Formats: sequence, C-alpha cells, structure tokens
Amino acid sequence: MLTSEISISVIGAGNVAWHLAKRLFVRGYSIRCVFSRNLSHATLLAKQLKAEAVDNITSVPVSDLYLFSVKDDAYREIISAFPKTKAICVHTSGSLEMDILENLSDCYGVLYPFQSFSKDKFITFEQVPLCVEASNHQTEQFLMEFARVISPITYYLNTEQRAYLHLAGVFASNFSNALYVIAQQILQQRNIDFKIILPLIKETVEKVNNLSPIEAQTGPAVRNDVGIINKHIEMINNTDLKVLYQLLSNIIQKQHTI
Amino acid sequence: MLTSEISISVIGAGNVAWHLAKRLFVRGYSIRCVFSRNLSHATLLAKQLKAEAVDNITSVPVSDLYLFSVKDDAYREIISAFPKTKAICVHTSGSLEMDILENLSDCYGVLYPFQSFSKDKFITFEQVPLCVEASNHQTEQFLMEFARVISPITYYLNTEQRAYLHLAGVFASNFSNALYVIAQQILQQRNIDFKIILPLIKETVEKVNNLSPIEAQTGPAVRNDVGIINKHIEMINNTDLKVLYQLLSNIIQKQHTI
Repeated sequence: MLTSEISISVIGAGNVAWHLAKRLFVRGYSIRCVFSRNLSHATLLAKQLKAEAVDNITSVPVSDLYLFSVKDDAYREIISAFPKTKAICVHTSGSLEMDILENLSDCYGVLYPFQSFSKDKFITFEQVPLCVEASNHQTEQFLMEFARVISPITYYLNTEQRAYLHLAGVFASNFSNALYVIAQQILQQRNIDFKIILPLIKETVEKVNNLSPIEAQTGPAVRNDVGIINKHIEMINNTDLKVLYQLLSNIIQKQHTI
Repeated sequence: MLTSEISISVIGAGNVAWHLAKRLFVRGYSIRCVFSRNLSHATLLAKQLKAEAVDNITSVPVSDLYLFSVKDDAYREIISAFPKTKAICVHTSGSLEMDILENLSDCYGVLYPFQSFSKDKFITFEQVPLCVEASNHQTEQFLMEFARVISPITYYLNTEQRAYLHLAGVFASNFSNALYVIAQQILQQRNIDFKIILPLIKETVEKVNNLSPIEAQTGPAVRNDVGIINKHIEMINNTDLKVLYQLLSNIIQKQHTI
C-alpha cells in the first residue's frame, strides 16, 4: 500500500491535529473525517480538508489510518471508546507511551512532531522534526515513509527517548520563554522597552546553531564574576527570582567544571 | 565639533572593544591608538584600524575621545592610572555606574552595546541597541549623535536602568543558554542529536517577536498538567535540575495568576 493512497481520519481538532491534517491534505492525502467532541471545532478543520466532521467517536468512518491527536489526558478515554481495527493507529503525543494503542490494532505507532504549534501561526513543516515509533517493522517502514511526506527531518525514537526529548523541550523552550517573561517584567518595572532585548535573544539562539551551547555560554556565572552575581541577587526583589538566579548560576558553574 | 572629525583612542582590546573599534573605523572614524596590557592583543586590533598599539597607559596619545572598554574588574585600576583630561571619556560596561569616570573629565558618559560579542563572530551593528548615558547635556547630545553612527537603535538609560537591563539580559540570554546546555545533556544521555531541538528553540524566539512572552507561554506548567510535571521531575536524576524544574514551573504558574 502506497502511503499516498490511504484514507485518513483525524481524531482531534487541537493545535497539532490542525497543523498535521492540513499538511497531509496539502501533500495530497485524502482526509475522510475529523472527530472532535466539540462539533464546531471538528467542522472548522474538516471544511478546510473537504472532510466529514463528527462529534461521536463511533461515527468515525472506516479508514486506513487513524491519527489520534488529542490532549494527553484525553487519549485513554477516546481510545477505550474506539472499536478494534485492522487499520494503522497513530498518536502524536511526546509524553505518552506507544503502547496506549496496543489494544486497538496490531499496527500502531507514534508520529510526534517536535515543535510548538499555535492555530494562528504558520509553520514551515520542512523544518519540523518528526519522531516515529512503531509496533512492528512493517508499520515502522510505513510510518517513516508517511513521515517523510510531511517533513524531511525524521527520527526513529523509542518511547523513553521521546519522553526525554519532551523533557528537554520543556527546558529549552517553555522554561526559556519563562525567562523572557522575567526579563520583560524587570524591564517594565524600569520603563525600558522589551524590544531592546530581542536582538540579544536572537543572537543567543544564533550562536547555538554553530557552537555547542556549552561553548556559547557567556555571562557573570561562567566568568565567576562574584561581584556582579552578588550585586544582581541584591537588585532582585522577588524571592523566587533570587533563588532562581543563584540556582542557575550554580548550575552554570557546575556545567563548566565537569 | 562634528563627531566624525574626532580622534579616538580605545582603551582595551577585548570582545566589545574589538567590535566597537572596528565598527567606528568602518564608519569613517580615525582611531589613533589601541591600549591593552597585552601588547600583542593591542597590536592585533590596532593593525586593522591603522592605529598605534601601546601597552603602557601613560603612552596613550592625546585624543578627543577615550573609549574605555575593559573587564568590569579592571576599570578602576586603569581609570586611576589615567591622567585627567578635557576629552570625552566613555565606558562600555552594563553594570558599572557612569560616575566611575567622574574624576577623569567633566565630559564623560557610557556607551553600552547591548549584545553578546565574540571576536570570531560577525555582528550586524544595525541591530545592536546602544545605551547612552552622559554627565551633562552637551555630552549627551554628542554621545547620542556618536551612537547613531554606530547603530540606528539608541536608548538613553541612566545607571540604574542600565544595571537592570544587564540583569534582564542575564535571565534572557545567559540563563536561556544554560537551559540549552541542560537540554543537550538530557538528549546526549539518550543518544539523541541536539540538532533535533534547534527548530523548537528558533520558534520559541520567533514567537516573542510578535507576541509578548507571557502570551507565548506553552507547556505543562502553564496548562497545570500535574501528571506530566510529576513524571518529568521523576525522570530527572540530578537534584539541581529537579529543583530547577519545580521552581520554574512554580514561577510560570505565578506569572499566569497575577
């Protein structure tokens, strides 16, 4: 079976389902149906895919591939309500094990796009890494081929690796963004425009394109500039942030003594 | 006095001195002299500027502007060895007060380029914010004009604002980079290529170009996904990182309840 000839039903209409389904449609796949518990969400997406919208899980039509893409805590309920099938069943979660699908089909797996999606923000799929896992060799071959139609950047990761990738993403993306929020609050309190810091943030990321992050490290902690470190901790008036400054400075110093 | 007609001596040959002096030269300024305690460092930079190199601070020739750009903990010693002058004296530090120059001249100030410089990495100065502070109105006018020749992005910040800007930069840049190091170590331990995370890091930064960072926040903490948060803390085998994960998750949740 060629991957491009299969019919697909998408279970979910959230951010990931939204972007993946549209990408599949653009790449020539036929999407039969979009399911969401909220029919208007399903309809909004289905319309763009010339697909049927349903809000009853048992009404999802027979398809060759079911793409489950819902919130992590919604998977188990939806999967348990889904009839056993011979089709390929795939979920898109970074943190759930592949085997949550094991009672649904013999051919199941994971297609985890490692990117942060928002519905109203265009994504260049050519730059989205796709992490594949599969229940058997045949399904693996199929899913790797399927993934390559979506993006040229594909990896085969097992459930444990995928969970650690997700954890690494929390540090590198969610927590970095929290640091940007802290920076913004510090600047706002002193009437300084947040825009002033954007070139520095961009340069920080540009550096790790060419250097490893450990080589790219700058700042008072790695220089062990105790004067500035102490001055900064004194300047901070929020206890959480004082502790955070000290902790991250310690972590940087340990990173550079190994 | 037109800014372009002045003669400049550069005190220091580190990263900031290096990039600023070369930018000034390219923009048509005449650099008379580069001082460094290490003559080979001074010579390396001076050659590119058709300038004289000296390693004795009392040998710096008379100039219209002295640009002091050394390590924070070296300023006081160098300034105290420098003869009193009628020229404009400027330092480039984010964290030192303007007044460390007050005994040197009546016309003094700060020109702080808010960017992370490395000698071997090209910098697009058009995107480097320059923060100016000056001891009097006339010097302010001069330094703002001088700064605009280097970069179109100029701000007037007082010593306190500049210190908080520097602090914000530590959070947004140095500490973000430390999070990239953590992510890299997590991936390395599971044999996953660090490159897989670069598109996510880039997208995280791209988002704060258009959204405020508080609006751009994603991840388990802001969703209050306690299941994932606890699973992640369990997966981390390093005490510092466990504490960091918990602390940053708490900070994110507080950022979103204000």
